[in-house]
Amino acid sequence: MASEKMVKEITSMDEDFAKWYTDVCLKAELIDYASVKGCMIIRPYGYAIWENIQSIMDSLFKDCGHENVYMPLFIPESLLQKEKDHVEGFAPEVAWVTHGGEEELEERLCVRPTSETLFCDHFKNIVHSYRDLPKLYNQWCSVVRWEKTTRPFLRSREFLWQEGHTLHATAKEAREETERMLNVYAHFAEQYLAIPVVKGQKTEKERFAGAEATYTIEALMHDGKALQSGTSHYFGDGFSRAFEVQYTDKENKLVYPFQTSWGTTTRLIGAVIMTHGDDNGLVLPPAVAPIQTVIVPIASHKAGVTEKATEIYEKLKKVCRVKLDLSDQTPGWKFAEYEMKGVPLRLEIGPRDIENNACVIVRRDNGEKTTVSLDELETAIPQLLQNVRDGLYQKALERRKTMTYDALSLEEMKDIAENKAGFIRAMWCGDRECEDKLKEVAGVTSRCIPFEQEHLSDTCVCCGKKADKMLYWGKAY
Amino acid sequence: MASEKMVKEITSMDEDFAKWYTDVCLKAELIDYASVKGCMIIRPYGYAIWENIQSIMDSLFKDCGHENVYMPLFIPESLLQKEKDHVEGFAPEVAWVTHGGEEELEERLCVRPTSETLFCDHFKNIVHSYRDLPKLYNQWCSVVRWEKTTRPFLRSREFLWQEGHTLHATAKEAREETERMLNVYAHFAEQYLAIPVVKGQKTEKERFAGAEATYTIEALMHDGKALQSGTSHYFGDGFSRAFEVQYTDKENKLVYPFQTSWGTTTRLIGAVIMTHGDDNGLVLPPAVAPIQTVIVPIASHKAGVTEKATEIYEKLKKVCRVKLDLSDQTPGWKFAEYEMKGVPLRLEIGPRDIENNACVIVRRDNGEKTTVSLDELETAIPQLLQNVRDGLYQKALERRKTMTYDALSLEEMKDIAENKAGFIRAMWCGDRECEDKLKEVAGVTSRCIPFEQEHLSDTCVCCGKKADKMLYWGKAY
Repeated sequence: MASEKMVKEITSMDEDFAKWYTDVCLKAELIDYASVKGCMIIRPYGYAIWENIQSIMDSLFKDCGHENVYMPLFIPESLLQKEKDHVEGFAPEVAWVTHGGEEELEERLCVRPTSETLFCDHFKNIVHSYRDLPKLYNQWCSVVRWEKTTRPFLRSREFLWQEGHTLHATAKEAREETERMLNVYAHFAEQYLAIPVVKGQKTEKERFAGAEATYTIEALMHDGKALQSGTSHYFGDGFSRAFEVQYTDKENKLVYPFQTSWGTTTRLIGAVIMTHGDDNGLVLPPAVAPIQTVIVPIASHKAGVTEKATEIYEKLKKVCRVKLDLSDQTPGWKFAEYEMKGVPLRLEIGPRDIENNACVIVRRDNGEKTTVSLDELETAIPQLLQNVRDGLYQKALERRKTMTYDALSLEEMKDIAENKAGFIRAMWCGDRECEDKLKEVAGVTSRCIPFEQEHLSDTCVCCGKKADKMLYWGKAY
Repeated sequence: MASEKMVKEITSMDEDFAKWYTDVCLKAELIDYASVKGCMIIRPYGYAIWENIQSIMDSLFKDCGHENVYMPLFIPESLLQKEKDHVEGFAPEVAWVTHGGEEELEERLCVRPTSETLFCDHFKNIVHSYRDLPKLYNQWCSVVRWEKTTRPFLRSREFLWQEGHTLHATAKEAREETERMLNVYAHFAEQYLAIPVVKGQKTEKERFAGAEATYTIEALMHDGKALQSGTSHYFGDGFSRAFEVQYTDKENKLVYPFQTSWGTTTRLIGAVIMTHGDDNGLVLPPAVAPIQTVIVPIASHKAGVTEKATEIYEKLKKVCRVKLDLSDQTPGWKFAEYEMKGVPLRLEIGPRDIENNACVIVRRDNGEKTTVSLDELETAIPQLLQNVRDGLYQKALERRKTMTYDALSLEEMKDIAENKAGFIRAMWCGDRECEDKLKEVAGVTSRCIPFEQEHLSDTCVCCGKKADKMLYWGKAY
């Protein structure tokens, strides 16, 4: 096929998955490495994917009544320390500003790793009465965590994200919000990114620092590793108490409100790459693809080809994000280029097609070719884009099914973890000790206690004691 | 009038302009103060204004072919130092990160005050051939400058902005880009923010650190002070040389490309407040108003009022950003609230209006009331919003005319600067010494050498030597 040039350039998945991943990040022009170790430059094509993610998510958030705000980049050390568990969780991995201009600061400032403390400090100022509740806030920004080992999108010292922070009059309402936003994340991942996810609760060990409960969506990557793709936290009134956020309720009593937070990051782009990508490069779900259809004229020097291609371009602009490539590269070069960039549909139009008043459309996800009448393009393209999304989702779902194993004993668990790759479902007694041991002997961590439970057996996979919870386990990014 | 409650709450402009300004920022719920000195929290209503600014500007940029990217937050000290003038300009006011987690960093990192150095470092990696040019990049992010005295939106230690960075094959092309983007800024300020601006070039003294030429749009605030509202810089090939960015041209020679950068910030919100605001609070230009029309039902307990108001709301949703306030506050309270928040149009609907199949619409900018048939609302509202924009622009333009003075001698200059407030137009010989002296004796700085010149006299206002340039001078934020 025409993709030779590019195929040569990237490592195959089977040969070295990690290398394949960074090859795709670089060759699809998603990122460049930066002069600061562990940070990345998000290039136009990568950033356009993030803009599409932002735009869809932002409208999902706004539909639930959330408002965007902007909090400062810096947190004074004393503010970070107000909630004990929170500071313990984050202090070891924050970047510290110690000097402003020529002067040493009186108090160190940390570059925000997350903004619970800032939101609480603000809530204290603006929430006084039950009339001021709920507060449903969200923020799009970058955060910094001083990680030791880093990889583009998956784990970098600075990353882009959204963090929702909400404050409610009752625990019930806050719990509902926590769950509602997890469902928004799952809906987004499945419908727009075509990535099937497992929804569930984190164990105490894996919980967010300072949270009473953490919920997660977990996706399975091509190589069988799990990727935590979005989390939603219920804080109870712990932060309110630590930050003295109080309001007067309808009975005129001074009480503490209840809080949540929830976040997703540029990591989602990593999830897209590792769920749908192949040895020809990126494969993008149409909803977030910067270019949904690329028009490649064939034999464009022949009379009428460029004109017809331009005419199609003008038509398709109304129904999708379309690019017309009139550059002087060969069609074969262009095929490879847009395959590498994961453009969902390629439309080929040449002299013979024009004679037949038709064109050929090729799906990036499965290579399927369709001949479409030029009169039907405006309905055919949106339908094909939907088919690509559905095809990607089904393929990922099938793969996850094939790569999900049940373990009934520690031996089985070790065997699967060692010789296979994927999710492992197993019963757990609830003891932290068993969780630690499974990490030690099988190298797996608990991914979540899924909402959809199945009773695999009566006993814990590790200690053999009574167990009534089924967990997903796995190796994770 | 009904606005009593609020009028009481804010200082009048004439009494204390600075206090009036911060009162508006706080009472209109644009900002809150943060725990880090000099930083601010942008609240939902303020952030929604910024989102509207972003959305309009972003599409203006994209129409000229610019692409968005994201560069790291941190700049290694050695990278910042590569361009001599640039580091001298910025080093005294940057925040330094010295520790990551528990460890001291080998090299200090500055939190970006602007990203020329990062873009150059990246350009060096990705630009090799004339085919790679031009690069037309833009970034939306926050930057940090460790200012001593700060004010919400106008000067804060962290602020939000966009920074465009472009790289071109020829000096001519780069100069054209610099001017093109200044024109985009002027167009945006005048058409969307209804703020008249003077376009011109900065003197060498006021130039951006490292630039060969800096262009600016200057606006005049209500109190007669100037506000620099957007700048566009031409760098020549200075940065390319400092960062060794080179490409192979069509003749196969290795040459240096030419560069520009241009930026606008959340300061534009300050410009809106101080250009259009009045003693009842904020007055927003419709294009960036989070709510363009607020519907206030009168006697809403009477049969049919709420229903009719809701019906109008559903209709208007299609033509503007509309809010229906069905809360149990009195109409008078609501009038004052939305006046404070600067909502361009208020629509009042009560039983008598319904009988007449009409409603009353009140303009925030001039208090003008119009009775409009309910059948004509969908055409009347967009027209009224346009009238508000035009009215605001005209009013600001008239004020600027009234507050622009010509000075032919140093005495006149001193007199105007001392006893009046506004722009001062005066001839200048081009010597830095005269510029310094005018600052010293009259307290004014040069705002710009306007593109539209007028020959006021033959001699410099300061030294009396030959002068062929007319400048705008003034006190500035």
